[in-house]
Amino acid sequence: MVAFQEIIARKRDGSPLTRSEIGEFVNGYLSGVIPDYQASALLMAILIRGMNTEETFALTEFMLKSGKVLSLDAIRGLKIDKHSTGGVGDKVSLMLAPMVASCGVVVPMVSGRGLGHTGGTLDKLESIPGYRTGLSINEFKKILKKCGVSIIGQTSDIAPADKKIYALRDVTATVESIPLITASILSKKLASGTDGILFDIKCGNGAFMKTIEDAEALAKSLVKTSHKFGKMARAVITSMDQPLGNAVGNSLEVIEVIEYLKGKRPADLDEVVISLGVQMLLMGGIAKSAKKAEGILIDSIDNGSALRKFEEFVKLQGGDVRVVDDPSLLDIADRFMDFKASRDGYISSFDTLKVGLAANTLGAGRKRIEDKVDFGVGFIFRRKLGERVRRGDVIAEIYARNKSAAGEASRMLSESIRITSRKPKLPPRIIKLIK
Amino acid sequence: MVAFQEIIARKRDGSPLTRSEIGEFVNGYLSGVIPDYQASALLMAILIRGMNTEETFALTEFMLKSGKVLSLDAIRGLKIDKHSTGGVGDKVSLMLAPMVASCGVVVPMVSGRGLGHTGGTLDKLESIPGYRTGLSINEFKKILKKCGVSIIGQTSDIAPADKKIYALRDVTATVESIPLITASILSKKLASGTDGILFDIKCGNGAFMKTIEDAEALAKSLVKTSHKFGKMARAVITSMDQPLGNAVGNSLEVIEVIEYLKGKRPADLDEVVISLGVQMLLMGGIAKSAKKAEGILIDSIDNGSALRKFEEFVKLQGGDVRVVDDPSLLDIADRFMDFKASRDGYISSFDTLKVGLAANTLGAGRKRIEDKVDFGVGFIFRRKLGERVRRGDVIAEIYARNKSAAGEASRMLSESIRITSRKPKLPPRIIKLIK
Repeated sequence: MVAFQEIIARKRDGSPLTRSEIGEFVNGYLSGVIPDYQASALLMAILIRGMNTEETFALTEFMLKSGKVLSLDAIRGLKIDKHSTGGVGDKVSLMLAPMVASCGVVVPMVSGRGLGHTGGTLDKLESIPGYRTGLSINEFKKILKKCGVSIIGQTSDIAPADKKIYALRDVTATVESIPLITASILSKKLASGTDGILFDIKCGNGAFMKTIEDAEALAKSLVKTSHKFGKMARAVITSMDQPLGNAVGNSLEVIEVIEYLKGKRPADLDEVVISLGVQMLLMGGIAKSAKKAEGILIDSIDNGSALRKFEEFVKLQGGDVRVVDDPSLLDIADRFMDFKASRDGYISSFDTLKVGLAANTLGAGRKRIEDKVDFGVGFIFRRKLGERVRRGDVIAEIYARNKSAAGEASRMLSESIRITSRKPKLPPRIIKLIK
Repeated sequence: MVAFQEIIARKRDGSPLTRSEIGEFVNGYLSGVIPDYQASALLMAILIRGMNTEETFALTEFMLKSGKVLSLDAIRGLKIDKHSTGGVGDKVSLMLAPMVASCGVVVPMVSGRGLGHTGGTLDKLESIPGYRTGLSINEFKKILKKCGVSIIGQTSDIAPADKKIYALRDVTATVESIPLITASILSKKLASGTDGILFDIKCGNGAFMKTIEDAEALAKSLVKTSHKFGKMARAVITSMDQPLGNAVGNSLEVIEVIEYLKGKRPADLDEVVISLGVQMLLMGGIAKSAKKAEGILIDSIDNGSALRKFEEFVKLQGGDVRVVDDPSLLDIADRFMDFKASRDGYISSFDTLKVGLAANTLGAGRKRIEDKVDFGVGFIFRRKLGERVRRGDVIAEIYARNKSAAGEASRMLSESIRITSRKPKLPPRIIKLIK
């Protein structure tokens, strides 16, 4: 066996690593044979030099196999999971999973928490009193079998190598690497035993991928690597140049989800939810054309089956479903302040990252993984990109715990939102489909 | 203050670091505020992305100032140190320092130990019974004042940041970086308070720099950075495509040094010693032209003053100078075996790295810094590059502790030395002067 620094040196000099070298890294790091300082040097070399398809596949496979891989064979129907790379106000999983499940696709979702400026599906769900994200694998399977959808967190026996490597990447500036992101996402997602994955690759100033080129490269890497594992996979690149929908903040977003499922569908959010849902129904074999799939999805809202599926799975996971009819059961902070337009004009741009950080200032997110989230705080946007405003119009309601936090958030919003005299050209919400 | 991973990210993305960021790295790592895993990620980013002149200067300066910087102002005359990047059979410092000192240049040399396939000046000197390399700074200054030359090891208060960073580079594949090598060498060399440094940049298959391009880049970086510190500096790029001189191994090399100073000067070794000595005399203001300098140096051998200076400084450092007349006082292993030519022809190439590793197999060097060196083992080459041999001619005498070590070394020599029918074209020994 060669010394591990020789493996680091090969990647440093731009050579691809062999399958067994990648295995030595993943297993050696997890077991502690390879120290942090060697792992971080290799991760930096990987970030800068890249990895080819075979290397990315091997890295994903070793990370996946470092933990438990479920089998969902006992559950009938095609299982399609969905993953978003994260954005501000991205509550899509919460409505999409039950909608699609109500149409007949099984959705076994292993989801994540918010970090940095982005929120997380688990935090949003946990703002529903009683909802348990930490189910055992048996409970997860049981719920899936019963109602066709379950959303849980990564258990400690799923991809432990990813957990350890991700923690190191986070403090060594080695997060932004397409092969490393690919392996991290897929090692968790494939562990659930799903048949297919739809990736929502967020692109724009509130996303990890700022440019279409980067988003497309990640989308292709995810789809290609999934295919190598024999899984169905597609990716939709969607815009993250403003918060998605109107609500930002955990309880506030849950309310928006419930209203959506009751038929109140904000245009930007709706376009993303339906586009993603269409792909999931097509992958799941429920519809043969996008047009048909769209009809089925809208029916599921109109006839109430999507909302009933939401109630069913939330209840099975221990959540208090009375929130559907009585949102006051959710913890909502006081509406402390409104953020108003400082002039007449059009809302021409959001600094979406900063909007996310402003929500963090209120307590809606975490800076570090161990931080506690305040479910009740956040924003409700009354005006979005391209809309006309008059000086003094309310652009956003600010829900906060005290005046100083609300004031700080308002100040950050004023730096985030630009109002111009000319009506801006709006970017497309659905940018590209990769399959 | 920004989080350290943001500094890592800037270098990762190819931006130059500011002076204060570099200071934060060096001081933070030395004090333990910055952990190994962040330091190694940054070192890898530096290795791949490089550093500009200002960054290299700042890195060197913070590493230098992490420890003690001597003042030699109390010692009269210009002080010129010499540094070699290391090779096989490179005993040049041992004769050159006293030669140049006998001509009137003060030589305050802080030297290193052998590691990997290369030998170290300190190990060679310590093969002289009694020689002390671990002098205090006061003893160092006293000897310099008395006889104009002293050779000691890096004390713990010289550039401690370099010591800690080097240990990390060694295990994270981040050694081969011109700015990092520059800062490491200069932070130690400048600590001695010298007025100038002559760099011997070894180039070839037995050197760290394999190509002339790499050697020249390092030479320029060292010279340029030294100039920024207000020091005189020149570099000579010399060939390391075969062992330098005839002896490889500590005691054997000391004998070769003594014989050289007595006038028995192997051609390849002599050309390098004289070329380097000429530059040191020119820098030290002893001679105005290379021709004059060369004459002065050869006189110092012919009239015995260089040998007397060698005896003087070795004695002052505690060494047994009787070895000059009685080499049997040195520990020399038995001549266990001879390596002989397997066919008629010309010696057309050496794999010099492998010759160094073969000497290591006998015990002449170290794989790890904590290994003990066997002074008595090694090779004496009777034939060198370009020489004609007949089948059965002795190419090298093998001095070893047992038959199996000698046999293994002989096997490695047979893989290192190529004999061909046609006389090879010999590369120049002195490749380039950079000033």
